[in-house]
Amino acid sequence: MKYGIALFPAKKLQDLANSFRMRYDSHYAWIPPHITVKEPFEVSDDNLPYITAKLREIASNLSPVEIDVYKVDTFSPQSNTIFFKIREHKTLTALYEKLHSEPFEENKKYKFIPHVTIGQDLSKDEVADIVGRLKMKKVEHHEVIDRMQLMYQLENGSWTVYETFRLGE
Amino acid sequence: MKYGIALFPAKKLQDLANSFRMRYDSHYAWIPPHITVKEPFEVSDDNLPYITAKLREIASNLSPVEIDVYKVDTFSPQSNTIFFKIREHKTLTALYEKLHSEPFEENKKYKFIPHVTIGQDLSKDEVADIVGRLKMKKVEHHEVIDRMQLMYQLENGSWTVYETFRLGE
Repeated sequence: MKYGIALFPAKKLQDLANSFRMRYDSHYAWIPPHITVKEPFEVSDDNLPYITAKLREIASNLSPVEIDVYKVDTFSPQSNTIFFKIREHKTLTALYEKLHSEPFEENKKYKFIPHVTIGQDLSKDEVADIVGRLKMKKVEHHEVIDRMQLMYQLENGSWTVYETFRLGE
Repeated sequence: MKYGIALFPAKKLQDLANSFRMRYDSHYAWIPPHITVKEPFEVSDDNLPYITAKLREIASNLSPVEIDVYKVDTFSPQSNTIFFKIREHKTLTALYEKLHSEPFEENKKYKFIPHVTIGQDLSKDEVADIVGRLKMKKVEHHEVIDRMQLMYQLENGSWTVYETFRLGE
């Protein structure tokens, strides 16, 4: 089955993200606003207890992560995703690195640029237009997230949380 | 903030439920297929640590719950909801009772009839038609669920999982 790992920010930032996502994000209905810390990876039913035990161990040995959203940005021209950009922070990098080291696959598509997606599957012109407008908006949000969520994907593309792991407990 | 507590069944049943929900359930995009064990209730930010500690305690003292789906049914004429009906089982009832006893509100709307909703906000005629057809379908699913999910609701109506509590650990 396909699993992924994400952090959910506080309701306030999720609501703000959704106010854009409802118009710009084709995955709006599939998952609440989130920060992906591990892209989809396969876990067999047999292997799941081992993976969850490992995640529990990793989580307990790490600190809660610092989330500092400071602007709207895009990966354009590499991809047409629009997102709230999150400042790099050692707590977040440490989590990401642990989730891409043994026994986990190193399934990194790109360099880790922590973000909350607010738009995707848009045309190049739409991206330029939306980002142009949103870059002028002040987007600031700070919080400490003390949990990560292991999710699995359903056939319709949506994600269900399987388990929460508390960071630093 | 508004919280709710639900069980998520295995992917197989969720996929089956979604195959109906995409056509019949107005809440399809808000939450994956689930079994509500506590209807929405308010928790203040200050009170959240106390509530989660209590839920952890309750979960650890209970057994995993037996889920036995055996037919499609409706609450009609009381409500036009269509659902997969789940057999009553003492493990499920025990969980429900604990979540409606001190310190939790007794926010029961109806008698507890465990189910996975597959349709809602339909007209009376649609309900009669759909239930008539689906009652002839064999729907059987058995599983043991060993976790419950505390979720909060976003402004757009969708739900985000806040924490998982493992039953019987």
